[in-house]
Amino acid sequence: MVHYKLTYFDFRGLGDCIRQVFYLANVEFEDERIVMKSDEWKNLKPKTPFGHLPVLTVDGLEIPQSMAIVRYLSKKFGFAGKTPEEEAWVDAIVDQFKDFGVSLRPYIYTIFENKPADVVEKTKKEVAIPACENYLRIINKILEKSKSGFLVGDSLTFADLVVADNLLSLHNDGFIKKGQHPKLDEFQAKIHNLPELKDYIASRPSTTF
Amino acid sequence: MVHYKLTYFDFRGLGDCIRQVFYLANVEFEDERIVMKSDEWKNLKPKTPFGHLPVLTVDGLEIPQSMAIVRYLSKKFGFAGKTPEEEAWVDAIVDQFKDFGVSLRPYIYTIFENKPADVVEKTKKEVAIPACENYLRIINKILEKSKSGFLVGDSLTFADLVVADNLLSLHNDGFIKKGQHPKLDEFQAKIHNLPELKDYIASRPSTTF
Repeated sequence: MVHYKLTYFDFRGLGDCIRQVFYLANVEFEDERIVMKSDEWKNLKPKTPFGHLPVLTVDGLEIPQSMAIVRYLSKKFGFAGKTPEEEAWVDAIVDQFKDFGVSLRPYIYTIFENKPADVVEKTKKEVAIPACENYLRIINKILEKSKSGFLVGDSLTFADLVVADNLLSLHNDGFIKKGQHPKLDEFQAKIHNLPELKDYIASRPSTTF
Repeated sequence: MVHYKLTYFDFRGLGDCIRQVFYLANVEFEDERIVMKSDEWKNLKPKTPFGHLPVLTVDGLEIPQSMAIVRYLSKKFGFAGKTPEEEAWVDAIVDQFKDFGVSLRPYIYTIFENKPADVVEKTKKEVAIPACENYLRIINKILEKSKSGFLVGDSLTFADLVVADNLLSLHNDGFIKKGQHPKLDEFQAKIHNLPELKDYIASRPSTTF
Protein backbone atom coordinates (compact mmCIF):
# COMPACT_ATOMS: atom_id res chain seq x y z
CA MET A 1 0.00 0.00 0.00
CA VAL A 2 1.27 3.46 -0.92
CA HIS A 3 2.14 5.59 2.11
CA TYR A 4 0.95 9.18 1.79
CA LYS A 5 2.02 11.87 4.23
CA LEU A 6 0.66 15.39 3.90
CA THR A 7 2.70 18.00 5.77
CA TYR A 8 0.86 21.28 6.15
CA PHE A 9 -0.02 23.94 8.70
CA ASP A 10 -2.79 23.52 11.26
CA PHE A 11 -5.30 25.57 9.29
CA ARG A 12 -7.31 25.15 6.08
CA GLY A 13 -5.43 27.53 3.76
CA LEU A 14 -4.48 26.04 0.40
CA GLY A 15 -3.86 22.59 1.88
CA ASP A 16 -7.20 21.48 3.22
CA CYS A 17 -8.59 20.60 -0.21
CA ILE A 18 -5.78 17.99 -0.36
CA ARG A 19 -7.02 16.43 2.88
CA GLN A 20 -10.54 16.47 1.43
CA VAL A 21 -9.45 14.52 -1.66
CA PHE A 22 -8.18 11.74 0.62
CA TYR A 23 -11.50 11.66 2.49
CA LEU A 24 -13.46 11.61 -0.78
CA ALA A 25 -11.37 8.72 -2.09
CA ASN A 26 -11.46 6.97 1.30
CA VAL A 27 -7.66 6.62 1.16
CA GLU A 28 -5.60 6.66 4.35
CA PHE A 29 -2.98 9.37 4.81
CA GLU A 30 -0.78 10.75 7.54
CA ASP A 31 -2.11 14.23 8.33
CA GLU A 32 0.97 16.00 9.71
CA ARG A 33 -0.04 19.44 11.00
CA ILE A 34 2.67 21.97 11.80
CA VAL A 35 2.26 25.13 13.88
CA MET A 36 3.40 28.02 11.68
CA LYS A 37 5.01 30.07 14.45
CA SER A 38 7.07 27.20 15.88
CA ASP A 39 10.65 25.98 15.97
CA GLU A 40 9.41 22.83 14.25
CA TRP A 41 8.53 24.85 11.13
CA LYS A 42 11.69 26.97 11.38
CA ASN A 43 13.77 23.78 11.33
CA LEU A 44 11.70 22.07 8.65
CA LYS A 45 11.45 25.01 6.19
CA PRO A 46 14.98 24.77 4.69
CA LYS A 47 14.53 21.02 4.24
CA THR A 48 11.37 21.36 2.08
CA PRO A 49 11.80 21.40 -1.72
CA PHE A 50 10.71 25.04 -2.18
CA GLY A 51 10.76 26.39 1.39
CA HIS A 52 6.98 26.14 1.68
CA LEU A 53 4.15 23.88 2.77
CA PRO A 54 2.18 21.84 1.83
CA VAL A 55 4.46 18.97 0.86
CA LEU A 56 3.07 15.55 -0.01
CA THR A 57 5.35 12.58 0.56
CA VAL A 58 4.46 9.54 -1.56
CA ASP A 59 6.51 6.52 -0.50
CA GLY A 60 9.43 8.85 0.16
CA LEU A 61 9.07 11.09 -2.93
CA GLU A 62 8.32 14.69 -1.99
CA ILE A 63 5.91 16.79 -4.08
CA PRO A 64 5.57 20.51 -3.29
CA GLN A 65 2.96 23.15 -4.25
CA SER A 66 -0.66 22.84 -3.15
CA MET A 67 -2.37 22.77 -6.55
CA ALA A 68 0.22 20.37 -8.03
CA ILE A 69 -0.47 18.01 -5.12
CA VAL A 70 -4.25 18.24 -5.30
CA ARG A 71 -4.16 17.72 -9.08
CA TYR A 72 -1.82 14.70 -8.71
CA LEU A 73 -4.10 13.00 -6.19
CA SER A 74 -7.27 14.00 -8.02
CA LYS A 75 -6.02 12.39 -11.23
CA LYS A 76 -5.22 9.21 -9.28
CA PHE A 77 -8.57 9.08 -7.52
CA GLY A 78 -10.86 10.38 -10.29
CA PHE A 79 -11.59 14.00 -9.33
CA ALA A 80 -9.69 15.87 -12.04
CA GLY A 81 -12.29 15.93 -14.84
CA LYS A 82 -13.42 13.22 -17.25
CA THR A 83 -12.03 14.56 -20.56
CA PRO A 84 -8.93 16.60 -21.47
CA GLU A 85 -11.20 19.63 -21.93
CA GLU A 86 -12.83 19.14 -18.51
CA GLU A 87 -9.36 18.81 -16.97
CA ALA A 88 -8.34 22.08 -18.63
CA TRP A 89 -11.38 23.89 -17.24
CA VAL A 90 -10.77 22.50 -13.75
CA ASP A 91 -7.20 23.82 -13.97
CA ALA A 92 -8.38 27.18 -15.32
CA ILE A 93 -10.88 27.70 -12.48
CA VAL A 94 -8.26 26.79 -9.89
CA ASP A 95 -5.73 29.22 -11.42
CA GLN A 96 -8.41 31.90 -11.48
CA PHE A 97 -9.02 31.26 -7.77
CA LYS A 98 -5.26 31.60 -7.12
CA ASP A 99 -5.14 34.87 -9.09
CA PHE A 100 -8.04 36.13 -7.00
CA GLY A 101 -6.09 35.29 -3.83
CA VAL A 102 -3.15 37.27 -5.16
CA SER A 103 -5.34 40.28 -5.90
CA LEU A 104 -6.46 40.33 -2.23
CA ARG A 105 -2.88 40.59 -0.97
CA PRO A 106 -2.53 44.39 -0.86
CA TYR A 107 -5.54 44.40 1.50
CA ILE A 108 -4.26 41.49 3.60
CA TYR A 109 -0.89 43.23 3.97
CA THR A 110 -2.55 46.36 5.39
CA ILE A 111 -3.91 44.14 8.18
CA PHE A 112 -0.67 42.17 8.77
CA GLU A 113 1.33 45.40 8.81
CA ASN A 114 -1.06 47.08 11.25
CA LYS A 115 -1.78 49.99 8.90
CA PRO A 116 -4.14 52.72 10.19
CA ALA A 117 -7.84 51.83 10.04
CA ASP A 118 -8.58 54.30 7.23
CA VAL A 119 -5.85 52.76 5.04
CA VAL A 120 -7.20 49.25 5.69
CA GLU A 121 -10.73 50.42 4.86
CA LYS A 122 -9.62 52.27 1.71
CA THR A 123 -7.69 49.23 0.42
CA LYS A 124 -10.63 46.98 1.22
CA LYS A 125 -13.03 49.24 -0.68
CA GLU A 126 -10.78 50.00 -3.66
CA VAL A 127 -8.94 46.69 -4.09
CA ALA A 128 -10.41 43.76 -2.17
CA ILE A 129 -14.14 44.27 -2.73
CA PRO A 130 -13.90 44.83 -6.53
CA ALA A 131 -11.58 41.78 -6.83
CA CYS A 132 -14.02 39.71 -4.80
CA GLU A 133 -17.03 40.86 -6.82
CA ASN A 134 -15.27 40.07 -10.08
CA TYR A 135 -14.27 36.58 -8.89
CA LEU A 136 -17.73 35.76 -7.52
CA ARG A 137 -19.31 36.93 -10.79
CA ILE A 138 -17.13 34.41 -12.67
CA ILE A 139 -18.03 31.54 -10.33
CA ASN A 140 -21.71 32.48 -10.37
CA LYS A 141 -21.72 32.54 -14.18
CA ILE A 142 -20.18 29.06 -14.32
CA LEU A 143 -22.71 27.70 -11.82
CA GLU A 144 -25.62 29.28 -13.69
CA LYS A 145 -24.64 27.30 -16.79
CA SER A 146 -24.04 24.06 -14.86
CA LYS A 147 -26.67 21.36 -15.07
CA SER A 148 -25.05 19.18 -12.39
CA GLY A 149 -24.43 21.87 -9.75
CA PHE A 150 -20.70 21.11 -10.00
CA LEU A 151 -18.33 23.61 -11.59
CA VAL A 152 -17.12 21.29 -14.37
CA GLY A 153 -18.94 18.38 -15.99
CA ASP A 154 -21.41 16.14 -14.18
CA SER A 155 -19.41 15.16 -11.10
CA LEU A 156 -17.15 16.52 -8.40
CA THR A 157 -13.66 17.79 -9.24
CA PHE A 158 -10.98 19.41 -7.12
CA ALA A 159 -12.09 22.81 -8.47
CA ASP A 160 -15.30 22.35 -6.44
CA LEU A 161 -13.29 21.65 -3.29
CA VAL A 162 -11.00 24.65 -3.74
CA VAL A 163 -13.81 27.08 -4.55
CA ALA A 164 -16.20 25.83 -1.82
CA ASP A 165 -13.52 26.09 0.87
CA ASN A 166 -12.65 29.59 -0.28
CA LEU A 167 -16.33 30.62 -0.15
CA LEU A 168 -16.30 29.57 3.51
CA SER A 169 -13.28 31.84 4.10
CA LEU A 170 -15.03 34.72 2.31
CA HIS A 171 -18.03 34.24 4.60
CA ASN A 172 -15.73 34.14 7.65
CA ASP A 173 -13.99 37.33 6.53
CA GLY A 174 -17.30 39.15 5.94
CA PHE A 175 -16.82 39.44 2.18
CA ILE A 176 -20.03 37.50 1.59
CA LYS A 177 -23.14 37.89 3.67
CA LYS A 178 -25.52 34.95 4.09
CA GLY A 179 -28.21 35.10 1.41
CA GLN A 180 -26.35 37.64 -0.74
CA HIS A 181 -25.39 34.99 -3.31
CA PRO A 182 -27.94 32.14 -3.02
CA LYS A 183 -26.33 30.16 -5.86
CA LEU A 184 -22.93 30.23 -4.12
CA ASP A 185 -24.40 29.35 -0.70
CA GLU A 186 -26.23 26.42 -2.28
CA PHE A 187 -23.02 25.26 -4.02
CA GLN A 188 -20.93 25.48 -0.87
CA ALA A 189 -23.55 23.54 1.11
CA LYS A 190 -23.76 20.89 -1.62
CA ILE A 191 -20.01 20.28 -1.56
CA HIS A 192 -19.54 20.38 2.20
CA ASN A 193 -22.52 18.08 2.74
CA LEU A 194 -21.25 15.32 0.46
CA PRO A 195 -21.52 12.08 2.47
CA GLU A 196 -17.76 11.42 2.14
CA LEU A 197 -16.88 14.92 3.38
CA LYS A 198 -19.58 15.85 5.86
CA ASP A 199 -18.04 14.29 8.97
CA TYR A 200 -14.57 15.61 8.22
CA ILE A 201 -15.86 19.14 7.55
CA ALA A 202 -17.82 19.10 10.82
CA SER A 203 -14.92 17.78 12.88
CA ARG A 204 -11.91 19.63 11.41
CA PRO A 205 -10.42 22.43 13.52
CA SER A 206 -12.41 25.63 12.94
CA THR A 207 -10.12 28.31 11.49
CA THR A 208 -10.91 31.64 9.75
CA PHE A 209 -8.94 30.64 6.66
CA MET B 1 -8.31 18.44 -38.25
CA VAL B 2 -8.76 20.28 -34.96
CA HIS B 3 -8.70 24.07 -35.34
CA TYR B 4 -6.67 25.79 -32.63
CA LYS B 5 -6.73 29.55 -32.17
CA LEU B 6 -4.56 31.20 -29.54
CA THR B 7 -5.62 34.73 -28.65
CA TYR B 8 -2.97 36.63 -26.71
CA PHE B 9 -1.17 39.94 -26.59
CA ASP B 10 1.69 40.83 -28.93
CA PHE B 11 4.41 40.05 -26.40
CA ARG B 12 5.84 36.90 -24.79
CA GLY B 13 4.38 37.20 -21.26
CA LEU B 14 2.69 34.06 -19.98
CA GLY B 15 1.40 33.11 -23.42
CA ASP B 16 4.46 32.53 -25.54
CA CYS B 17 5.17 29.12 -24.04
CA ILE B 18 1.80 28.08 -25.52
CA ARG B 19 2.97 29.15 -28.97
CA GLN B 20 6.18 27.20 -28.38
CA VAL B 21 4.27 23.98 -27.61
CA PHE B 22 2.61 24.23 -31.03
CA TYR B 23 6.00 24.69 -32.73
CA LEU B 24 7.50 21.77 -30.79
CA ALA B 25 4.62 19.51 -31.79
CA ASN B 26 4.61 20.88 -35.34
CA VAL B 27 0.88 21.52 -35.07
CA GLU B 28 -0.73 24.40 -36.96
CA PHE B 29 -2.50 27.11 -34.98
CA GLU B 30 -3.95 30.55 -35.54
CA ASP B 31 -1.70 32.99 -33.67
CA GLU B 32 -4.04 35.90 -32.97
CA ARG B 33 -2.04 38.78 -31.44
CA ILE B 34 -3.89 41.66 -29.80
CA VAL B 35 -2.45 45.06 -28.94
CA MET B 36 -3.07 45.58 -25.20
CA LYS B 37 -3.76 49.30 -25.40
CA SER B 38 -6.32 49.07 -28.21
CA ASP B 39 -10.05 49.27 -28.76
CA GLU B 40 -9.87 45.71 -30.05
CA TRP B 41 -8.87 44.46 -26.57
CA LYS B 42 -11.32 46.82 -24.82
CA ASN B 43 -14.13 45.29 -26.89
CA LEU B 44 -12.90 41.73 -26.57
CA LYS B 45 -12.17 41.72 -22.80
CA PRO B 46 -15.80 41.39 -21.56
CA LYS B 47 -16.39 38.56 -24.04
CA THR B 48 -13.51 36.39 -22.71
CA PRO B 49 -14.35 33.72 -20.08
CA PHE B 50 -12.43 35.42 -17.24
CA GLY B 51 -11.72 38.90 -18.66
CA HIS B 52 -8.12 37.98 -19.45
CA LEU B 53 -5.86 36.63 -22.17
CA PRO B 54 -4.61 34.14 -23.26
CA VAL B 55 -7.65 32.21 -24.43
CA LEU B 56 -7.29 29.06 -26.51
CA THR B 57 -10.19 28.18 -28.79
CA VAL B 58 -10.35 24.48 -29.70
CA ASP B 59 -12.95 23.87 -32.38
CA GLY B 60 -15.08 26.58 -30.78
CA LEU B 61 -14.51 25.64 -27.12
CA GLU B 62 -12.77 28.42 -25.21
CA ILE B 63 -10.16 27.59 -22.54
CA PRO B 64 -8.79 30.44 -20.40
CA GLN B 65 -5.72 30.73 -18.12
CA SER B 66 -2.19 30.40 -19.51
CA MET B 67 -0.97 27.45 -17.47
CA ALA B 68 -4.23 25.51 -17.92
CA ILE B 69 -3.84 25.97 -21.69
CA VAL B 70 -0.18 25.00 -21.84
CA ARG B 71 -0.83 21.92 -19.68
CA TYR B 72 -3.81 20.90 -21.85
CA LEU B 73 -1.76 21.09 -25.06
CA SER B 74 1.33 19.55 -23.46
CA LYS B 75 -0.65 16.52 -22.34
CA LYS B 76 -2.01 16.15 -25.88
CA PHE B 77 1.38 16.50 -27.56
CA GLY B 78 3.59 14.70 -24.99
CA PHE B 79 5.32 17.50 -23.08
CA ALA B 80 3.66 17.18 -19.67
CA GLY B 81 5.83 14.50 -18.03
CA LYS B 82 5.95 10.74 -18.53
CA THR B 83 4.60 9.53 -15.16
CA PRO B 84 2.04 10.94 -12.71
CA GLU B 85 4.95 11.94 -10.44
CA GLU B 86 6.77 13.72 -13.28
CA GLU B 87 3.53 15.52 -14.16
CA ALA B 88 3.20 16.63 -10.53
CA TRP B 89 6.76 18.01 -10.48
CA VAL B 90 6.20 19.84 -13.78
CA ASP B 91 3.10 21.43 -12.25
CA ALA B 92 4.94 22.26 -9.03
CA ILE B 93 7.79 24.04 -10.84
CA VAL B 94 5.33 26.02 -12.94
CA ASP B 95 3.36 27.08 -9.85
CA GLN B 96 6.62 28.05 -8.15
CA PHE B 97 7.45 30.20 -11.18
CA LYS B 98 4.01 31.85 -10.93
CA ASP B 99 4.51 32.51 -7.21
CA PHE B 100 7.86 34.09 -8.03
CA GLY B 101 6.15 36.37 -10.54
CA VAL B 102 3.67 37.41 -7.86
CA SER B 103 6.47 38.20 -5.41
CA LEU B 104 7.97 40.63 -7.96
CA ARG B 105 4.75 42.63 -8.21
CA PRO B 106 5.41 45.21 -5.46
CA TYR B 107 8.57 46.17 -7.39
CA ILE B 108 6.82 46.20 -10.78
CA TYR B 109 4.08 48.43 -9.36
CA THR B 110 6.66 51.02 -8.23
CA ILE B 111 7.70 51.31 -11.90
CA PHE B 112 4.16 51.33 -13.35
CA GLU B 113 3.08 53.91 -10.76
CA ASN B 114 6.10 56.15 -11.46
CA LYS B 115 7.28 56.10 -7.85
CA PRO B 116 10.39 58.16 -7.00
CA ALA B 117 13.69 56.51 -8.00
CA ASP B 118 14.72 55.83 -4.38
CA VAL B 119 11.44 53.98 -3.71
CA VAL B 120 11.91 51.88 -6.87
CA GLU B 121 15.48 51.09 -5.86
CA LYS B 122 14.55 50.24 -2.25
CA THR B 123 11.77 47.89 -3.39
CA LYS B 124 14.09 46.29 -5.92
CA LYS B 125 16.73 45.70 -3.26
CA GLU B 126 14.45 44.58 -0.45
CA VAL B 127 11.76 42.67 -2.36
CA ALA B 128 12.65 41.82 -5.97
CA ILE B 129 16.29 40.77 -5.66
CA PRO B 130 15.78 38.43 -2.66
CA ALA B 131 12.73 36.88 -4.41
CA CYS B 132 14.76 36.43 -7.58
CA GLU B 133 17.73 34.88 -5.75
CA ASN B 134 15.45 32.47 -3.92
CA TYR B 135 13.73 31.39 -7.15
CA LEU B 136 16.99 30.98 -9.08
CA ARG B 137 18.43 28.93 -6.20
CA ILE B 138 15.49 26.51 -6.53
CA ILE B 139 15.89 26.19 -10.32
CA ASN B 140 19.67 25.80 -10.01
CA LYS B 141 19.24 23.06 -7.42
CA ILE B 142 16.86 21.16 -9.69
CA LEU B 143 19.23 21.47 -12.66
CA GLU B 144 22.22 20.35 -10.57
CA LYS B 145 20.40 17.10 -9.82
CA SER B 146 19.21 16.61 -13.42
CA LYS B 147 21.04 14.07 -15.55
CA SER B 148 19.23 15.09 -18.76
CA GLY B 149 19.62 18.86 -18.50
CA PHE B 150 15.81 19.15 -18.46
CA LEU B 151 13.99 20.18 -15.29
CA VAL B 152 11.92 17.00 -14.98
CA GLY B 153 12.74 13.50 -16.23
CA ASP B 154 14.75 12.77 -19.36
CA SER B 155 12.92 14.92 -21.92
CA LEU B 156 11.42 18.33 -22.48
CA THR B 157 8.29 19.43 -20.60
CA PHE B 158 6.38 22.69 -20.53
CA ALA B 159 8.16 23.56 -17.25
CA ASP B 160 11.36 23.93 -19.33
CA LEU B 161 9.61 26.31 -21.73
CA VAL B 162 8.13 28.46 -18.96
CA VAL B 163 11.36 28.68 -16.95
CA ALA B 164 13.64 29.28 -19.98
CA ASP B 165 11.45 32.10 -21.29
CA ASN B 166 11.38 33.70 -17.86
CA LEU B 167 15.19 33.49 -17.62
CA LEU B 168 15.31 35.51 -20.85
CA SER B 169 13.06 38.16 -19.24
CA LEU B 170 15.26 38.23 -16.13
CA HIS B 171 18.28 38.82 -18.38
CA ASN B 172 16.42 41.59 -20.24
CA ASP B 173 15.43 43.23 -16.94
CA GLY B 174 19.00 43.09 -15.59
CA PHE B 175 18.18 40.65 -12.78
CA ILE B 176 20.70 38.16 -14.20
CA LYS B 177 24.03 39.15 -15.67
CA LYS B 178 25.59 36.99 -18.39
CA GLY B 179 27.91 34.44 -16.78
CA GLN B 180 26.53 34.93 -13.26
CA HIS B 181 24.65 31.62 -13.35
CA PRO B 182 26.39 29.39 -15.94
CA LYS B 183 24.01 26.47 -15.28
CA LEU B 184 20.97 28.66 -16.00
CA ASP B 185 22.54 30.22 -19.13
CA GLU B 186 23.37 26.74 -20.41
CA PHE B 187 19.81 25.57 -19.70
CA GLN B 188 18.20 28.55 -21.44
CA ALA B 189 20.46 28.10 -24.49
CA LYS B 190 19.66 24.37 -24.61
CA ILE B 191 15.90 24.99 -24.68
CA HIS B 192 15.91 27.92 -27.08
CA ASN B 193 18.25 26.09 -29.47
CA LEU B 194 16.07 23.01 -29.79
CA PRO B 195 15.73 22.37 -33.56
CA GLU B 196 11.92 22.66 -33.37
CA LEU B 197 12.10 26.02 -31.54
CA LYS B 198 15.22 27.73 -32.84
CA ASP B 199 13.70 29.40 -35.92
CA TYR B 200 10.62 30.58 -34.04
CA ILE B 201 12.68 31.99 -31.13
CA ALA B 202 14.92 33.86 -33.60
CA SER B 203 12.03 35.29 -35.61
CA ARG B 204 9.46 36.15 -32.92
CA PRO B 205 8.97 39.85 -32.11
CA SER B 206 11.64 40.93 -29.63
CA THR B 207 9.97 42.16 -26.43
CA THR B 208 11.38 42.77 -22.92
CA PHE B 209 8.89 40.37 -21.34
